[in-house]
Amino acid sequence: MTDPRNYAHEQRDTFRRQLFDLIRIPSISTDSAHAGEVRRAAEWIAGEMTRIGAEHVAVMPTAGHPVVYGDWLKAGPAAPTVLVYGHYDVQPASKNDGWATEPFEPTEIDGFIYARGSSDDKGQLFVHIKALESFLATRGAAPVNLKFLFEGEEEIGSKNLLPFLKANKDLLRSDVCVISDTGMRDIHQPTLTYALRGLTYMQIDVTGPSKDLHSGGYGGMVHNPALALAQIIAKLHNPDNSIAVPGFYDAVLPLSDEERAELAKQDIAEATLKAETDVPAAWGEAGYTLRERIGARPTMEINGLLSGWTGEGSKTVLPAKAMAKVSCRLVANQNPYRIYELVRDYVYSIAPPTVNVVVSLLNMGDPAIIDIHSSYVQAAVSAYERGWGAAPNYAREGGSIPVVADFKRELGIDSVMLGFGLNTDGAHGPNERFSVEMFHKGIDTAICFYEDLRK
Amino acid sequence: MTDPRNYAHEQRDTFRRQLFDLIRIPSISTDSAHAGEVRRAAEWIAGEMTRIGAEHVAVMPTAGHPVVYGDWLKAGPAAPTVLVYGHYDVQPASKNDGWATEPFEPTEIDGFIYARGSSDDKGQLFVHIKALESFLATRGAAPVNLKFLFEGEEEIGSKNLLPFLKANKDLLRSDVCVISDTGMRDIHQPTLTYALRGLTYMQIDVTGPSKDLHSGGYGGMVHNPALALAQIIAKLHNPDNSIAVPGFYDAVLPLSDEERAELAKQDIAEATLKAETDVPAAWGEAGYTLRERIGARPTMEINGLLSGWTGEGSKTVLPAKAMAKVSCRLVANQNPYRIYELVRDYVYSIAPPTVNVVVSLLNMGDPAIIDIHSSYVQAAVSAYERGWGAAPNYAREGGSIPVVADFKRELGIDSVMLGFGLNTDGAHGPNERFSVEMFHKGIDTAICFYEDLRK
Repeated sequence: MTDPRNYAHEQRDTFRRQLFDLIRIPSISTDSAHAGEVRRAAEWIAGEMTRIGAEHVAVMPTAGHPVVYGDWLKAGPAAPTVLVYGHYDVQPASKNDGWATEPFEPTEIDGFIYARGSSDDKGQLFVHIKALESFLATRGAAPVNLKFLFEGEEEIGSKNLLPFLKANKDLLRSDVCVISDTGMRDIHQPTLTYALRGLTYMQIDVTGPSKDLHSGGYGGMVHNPALALAQIIAKLHNPDNSIAVPGFYDAVLPLSDEERAELAKQDIAEATLKAETDVPAAWGEAGYTLRERIGARPTMEINGLLSGWTGEGSKTVLPAKAMAKVSCRLVANQNPYRIYELVRDYVYSIAPPTVNVVVSLLNMGDPAIIDIHSSYVQAAVSAYERGWGAAPNYAREGGSIPVVADFKRELGIDSVMLGFGLNTDGAHGPNERFSVEMFHKGIDTAICFYEDLRK
Repeated sequence: MTDPRNYAHEQRDTFRRQLFDLIRIPSISTDSAHAGEVRRAAEWIAGEMTRIGAEHVAVMPTAGHPVVYGDWLKAGPAAPTVLVYGHYDVQPASKNDGWATEPFEPTEIDGFIYARGSSDDKGQLFVHIKALESFLATRGAAPVNLKFLFEGEEEIGSKNLLPFLKANKDLLRSDVCVISDTGMRDIHQPTLTYALRGLTYMQIDVTGPSKDLHSGGYGGMVHNPALALAQIIAKLHNPDNSIAVPGFYDAVLPLSDEERAELAKQDIAEATLKAETDVPAAWGEAGYTLRERIGARPTMEINGLLSGWTGEGSKTVLPAKAMAKVSCRLVANQNPYRIYELVRDYVYSIAPPTVNVVVSLLNMGDPAIIDIHSSYVQAAVSAYERGWGAAPNYAREGGSIPVVADFKRELGIDSVMLGFGLNTDGAHGPNERFSVEMFHKGIDTAICFYEDLRK
């Protein structure tokens, strides 16, 4: 009888071909025109789980895109039950956005799989399906009980997951959750994320005249909405790059000296950042290291701007309106809705009387911190050592996985972030990719993690 | 034999039907995909001029869209020769931009013709063709020699008109130019524009990372290009809404007390502006009336903004780049290229080292002031009195007709602005319209103008 890890090594090419089939389904949840494709991806995963021997497999309806559930519960009552969470929906992608390859045709170049969803999160969720397959195909059993929960709305804020959790508490009852949807900076240095940022995503709409005006006929006596929007945005940060919204930092847990010392060990050199991103220089909140800025401090980003004429050449329009997408990454213990209120009230307080301004809330997620001393986290440490080949750093992650807070509140369980991505994978941007080596090392590590949970 | 004005009145419906045929051709010069339609509009006008009896009609090539030329030169050497300038190209328009009707299907509602180009400038140039037709169809002769010059690139900066003027000085030799491409605030109070603003149209491109980043993975340590752009734009104006670019106002001719007194008579009430545009309040440079702000003072507008995610909902991208279209309306004696240099150098001086900033020049036009005491301007005054029914105000126009400066420099002639539009026609915006009454009154006034030039 082959060992599960040997089996996984023998099946490398087959596993990748299967992953490619999943990636080819453009399950873009942000675009309602793609709802059929989102469903097709759910059904594909359900079929694959059934094929490898999972039980109770179902594509379960929600008010939005469906949830895929499946389990394997024959490890016995002494073994822990692990909830594996992932998401099969993806961000939009179009060749025109700067992709070198077709975004939904996975292409291997120099050890990377280039495709939308390759890293975020199809490749990472597939690791766990393949880990279970490796146990069942060799030993006929896994060392732990497993429940798989894959949602189709993570990229649009997981709006229907919380009602699903509330309605299915018995079905989902577990001892711990594992999520593979985070990244590390270096393949040789795995990262165990213990803190996640929350999110408050807003839109600022500035309107002036009821229709676009001729800039010659009205320019100079009407407040240009694009100018007014820029003037508002420029007041969102202080000169030291901290956020100027009154009360914004009130709930932030201060960093302890011990935590700052740990984060200092993993600090990011400006040269590394420049090499990764091609920016001319680092930026950020004065008084904090780069590592602290992305993991331990809340931030505010402009995710989009739109006003007036944006095509080729010149059009002398005085635009009727201007729009900005603005989002905050939050840290413990900031409350996303409170942050929306603070930003909204501040923007209204600085909005000039010459335009109309509306701040809308589009999306929210709670920040989370996880206890690194739990046996589950320690099993993950051991799994990285055996399956990946190196002990992980403890890290704070800049991104948001709001469901972690939901799992804690609704199911009473902690989540272990068993990430297999690289921060340079380009999730959400063009040319997203996933390392071939990390996909296969990830399967090894997941196998070790399930084994180590049983120890 | 019928009088030319009687003929024009008898032909009202026919003239409008003919105008509608011209308007239906979507001669959008800003979009290279429409080059064939631009040419078709030129050929349509050439055909119409030939039909009414103009001579030497030709669609003449340039490096871009063609120029339409035609003349009628049988008034004899004692009569002045008038160069009629207009443009047959239009701004882009799409039903999706907020049009209530199809933009290229002229629709008459409540005395207005709704269509792109109805006012700017097809309707106004057509007035002169119909005025010549009215003379030739009734008297077989016009009182003055006429040369028609209609270009197809006004909306994209008339780049190829200057070389055309230089290459065809003999063909175009005239005593005065007449241009109908300006507006008035009130149909009962015609306006004779004696000053036009110039234009410097630029684009600011801010780039940071070489590709879009995940806002969770990098937000807080990379300067968001959309934020940096907003911060730059917010420094373009001072708190009193004057322009903050050093040296920007150096060449501006100060307003004389006499001129301010004349402009004060035509000042625009804030209530009128609010009713026209639906803005909540007026805006602009402190120390100047609304009329002075749009006519006598230079301005700076943001014509467009684009960055990152601009679709429905949320996408947590940290955009790689951000773009703004920025244009300045200039007054005598500002030099458009010098203004570009000043804006560019100022933007570079305030650009943070954390992003890359490029300021490009897209388009330019000189400002102009015309002598109101000339016999040509006085003929226009008389023509408005007889043909329109009211003596005109002298006004400074906020818009730009850069060719006025070119005609002065290359052909040595002044231009009379015989405008028939309303400032509320919505040129360049959705639901552009042209008053039916003003179209027909315009033909009467053009007939009177040609007669009065001969006196």
